[in-house]
Amino acid sequence: MTNAEKALQLHEQWNGKLEIKSKAEVKSREDLALAYTPGVAEPCKLIAEDKKLAYKYTIKSNTIAVVSDGSAVLGLGNIGPYAAMPVMEGKAVLFKEFGGVNAVPICLDTQDTEEIIKAVKYMAPGFGGINLEDISAPRCFEIEERLKAELDIPVFHDDQHGTAIIVLAGVINGLKVVGKKKEDCRVVVNGAGSAGVAITKLLLRYGFTNVTMCDKSGILSKETADLNWMQKKMVEVTNLEGKTGSLADAMKGADIFVGVSAPGIVSEEMAASMNKDAIMFAMANPVPEIMPDLAKKAGVRVIGTGRSDFPNQVNNVLVFPGIFKGALEGGATQITEEMKLAAATAVAGLVSDEELSDVNILPEAFDPRVADVVSKAVMEHINK
Amino acid sequence: MTNAEKALQLHEQWNGKLEIKSKAEVKSREDLALAYTPGVAEPCKLIAEDKKLAYKYTIKSNTIAVVSDGSAVLGLGNIGPYAAMPVMEGKAVLFKEFGGVNAVPICLDTQDTEEIIKAVKYMAPGFGGINLEDISAPRCFEIEERLKAELDIPVFHDDQHGTAIIVLAGVINGLKVVGKKKEDCRVVVNGAGSAGVAITKLLLRYGFTNVTMCDKSGILSKETADLNWMQKKMVEVTNLEGKTGSLADAMKGADIFVGVSAPGIVSEEMAASMNKDAIMFAMANPVPEIMPDLAKKAGVRVIGTGRSDFPNQVNNVLVFPGIFKGALEGGATQITEEMKLAAATAVAGLVSDEELSDVNILPEAFDPRVADVVSKAVMEHINK
Repeated sequence: MTNAEKALQLHEQWNGKLEIKSKAEVKSREDLALAYTPGVAEPCKLIAEDKKLAYKYTIKSNTIAVVSDGSAVLGLGNIGPYAAMPVMEGKAVLFKEFGGVNAVPICLDTQDTEEIIKAVKYMAPGFGGINLEDISAPRCFEIEERLKAELDIPVFHDDQHGTAIIVLAGVINGLKVVGKKKEDCRVVVNGAGSAGVAITKLLLRYGFTNVTMCDKSGILSKETADLNWMQKKMVEVTNLEGKTGSLADAMKGADIFVGVSAPGIVSEEMAASMNKDAIMFAMANPVPEIMPDLAKKAGVRVIGTGRSDFPNQVNNVLVFPGIFKGALEGGATQITEEMKLAAATAVAGLVSDEELSDVNILPEAFDPRVADVVSKAVMEHINK
Repeated sequence: MTNAEKALQLHEQWNGKLEIKSKAEVKSREDLALAYTPGVAEPCKLIAEDKKLAYKYTIKSNTIAVVSDGSAVLGLGNIGPYAAMPVMEGKAVLFKEFGGVNAVPICLDTQDTEEIIKAVKYMAPGFGGINLEDISAPRCFEIEERLKAELDIPVFHDDQHGTAIIVLAGVINGLKVVGKKKEDCRVVVNGAGSAGVAITKLLLRYGFTNVTMCDKSGILSKETADLNWMQKKMVEVTNLEGKTGSLADAMKGADIFVGVSAPGIVSEEMAASMNKDAIMFAMANPVPEIMPDLAKKAGVRVIGTGRSDFPNQVNNVLVFPGIFKGALEGGATQITEEMKLAAATAVAGLVSDEELSDVNILPEAFDPRVADVVSKAVMEHINK
């Protein structure tokens, strides 16, 4: 049986990867009178007076919604809300198994930005946070920004920020391995969708100054045609030299390459044209922008991919469970830039100087320390 | 410690009465690759081609949403979506404990009819059914009717139909006890909100012909001022004699009284004015329209209330878990009138002729046979 067949068989067997369990026992009339009427009226009355008490008496304290419209699911594209459910259920599984966070998958049957924003706002009272997932760019940017502004619970688009945080963690340790300083590095980010934009923003925030974004049309500059509104904002703060040209042109002499783009689009020649001691994250899935052995042969020193069968897996399961665990436990109302930087630094810190090497810059997905370390980092930056 | 204090303490301890559990084990990279990427893409691709397969591969097959806007919660009124959460969580607990149905509480932060309809439609892909709860009349009628018409999953407003079904079950057995026929009975329903309307409709559907509705203003007739659109529809099919007057006037000579109204509004004199061998359901909570001992003294023969400390408790926990269990297991797209009648008949049938008496017309809330019997009755009427 192939893995694909096995996955299908298991999904049929599970018939839904989640179940709802009661924490309240209801075996007698007395139980019923405490968990339901008339007893349940007591917390209701208190919350009606002070809605903050929802955190004391309801699932809001430890439950988030995983929300998608199915418009950009994995590498499958716009497959819609029904077909997106297995992924959102899987995400909810990971939230629980890795972070102890209860997560409810919600797949919305609309791809209208305003309607998505309204639907999420309406359902927010019962949730302590919103994890947006697999929503296509540039709509995802507006949806997240608006929800962050209009809701009083944390809103986090994992495709953007989970990815950005784990890439930054890899970059922090990659620089230690190769002995370079962020101020001296030229960075190329290929892919100008949700992940590429968020990675670029977080690298700039961390202190990189020379970042160039590319997409199918090549280097993004103020001259590039057909940029969306977010890309227009990005070319104000990237590619400050105003370069134009192809991805190959951008990569010449670069110290760090981050690919969130398409399989096989980086050739050995392009990899070889990078600076000495180059760092490369080739995260197209399942086939990277360039296979690690070819990149190695071309002289790249540190190589990470999205895959678990190569060294340095860049996996945001190292990030999102701890982010929400910390946000919920600490009562955060936002996931701030400081929290994201702290989370990246915390993940990077899990690989000791002795352990650090070209092929070991990130902790394992199943490293049991990760979620706690990330959640603590998040909690230290609440209300600062 | 009072029961109220105990309920509050327990709610604090539970800190949310539900949790989400993973059915998929994720202990290794291989597990991860089957429950999440890349394996999860397989069911996604199949569902993208045929959305009916969502029932095979996702939680849609056994999960419903319990949706409220917090506008008419228990006897507490319009306390809003935050304060409604403990009730919706409690309802979800009962769905699971009594019917094995996974239920997610969703409290909506809008009380606009159109916005509620849209929000529920948007979230529907991940759910196999929608249980509406504690939404004020007459908005609840439009919301339910529209969602039934526009969604392809069962939509059921429990305050209406759960209550109506269990009342009908009680009426069926009450008539057996007193030896009357439905055709000969005069029925008075007091309370013209969601429950009163639904009870009246189901009694008419069952075959009662002489039903009079009352509310605070007395008998509802075509002459009554300020009727809402649903009440206007109801006076077309009730009170065919066009009576006017007070509740006391309506009750004179009545065979059956159903109260879904307010504590203590039925006097001993009013009870005594009913026909011989009268049946009375006084379901105001926690204090009934008339206390059972007073009704008994006034000559009423069969008396049911909403309370568990008197005989003949009329409790819709006998209904809603089995309704959705049957609808989900049978793949129903609607809860039809036939299913409601069948469910009432099935619940009534659980009290054998030998067991039937003035003080034993309904099964116990914890009777373990109930949910299965109701779900089977529902399943027998799918696609008929």
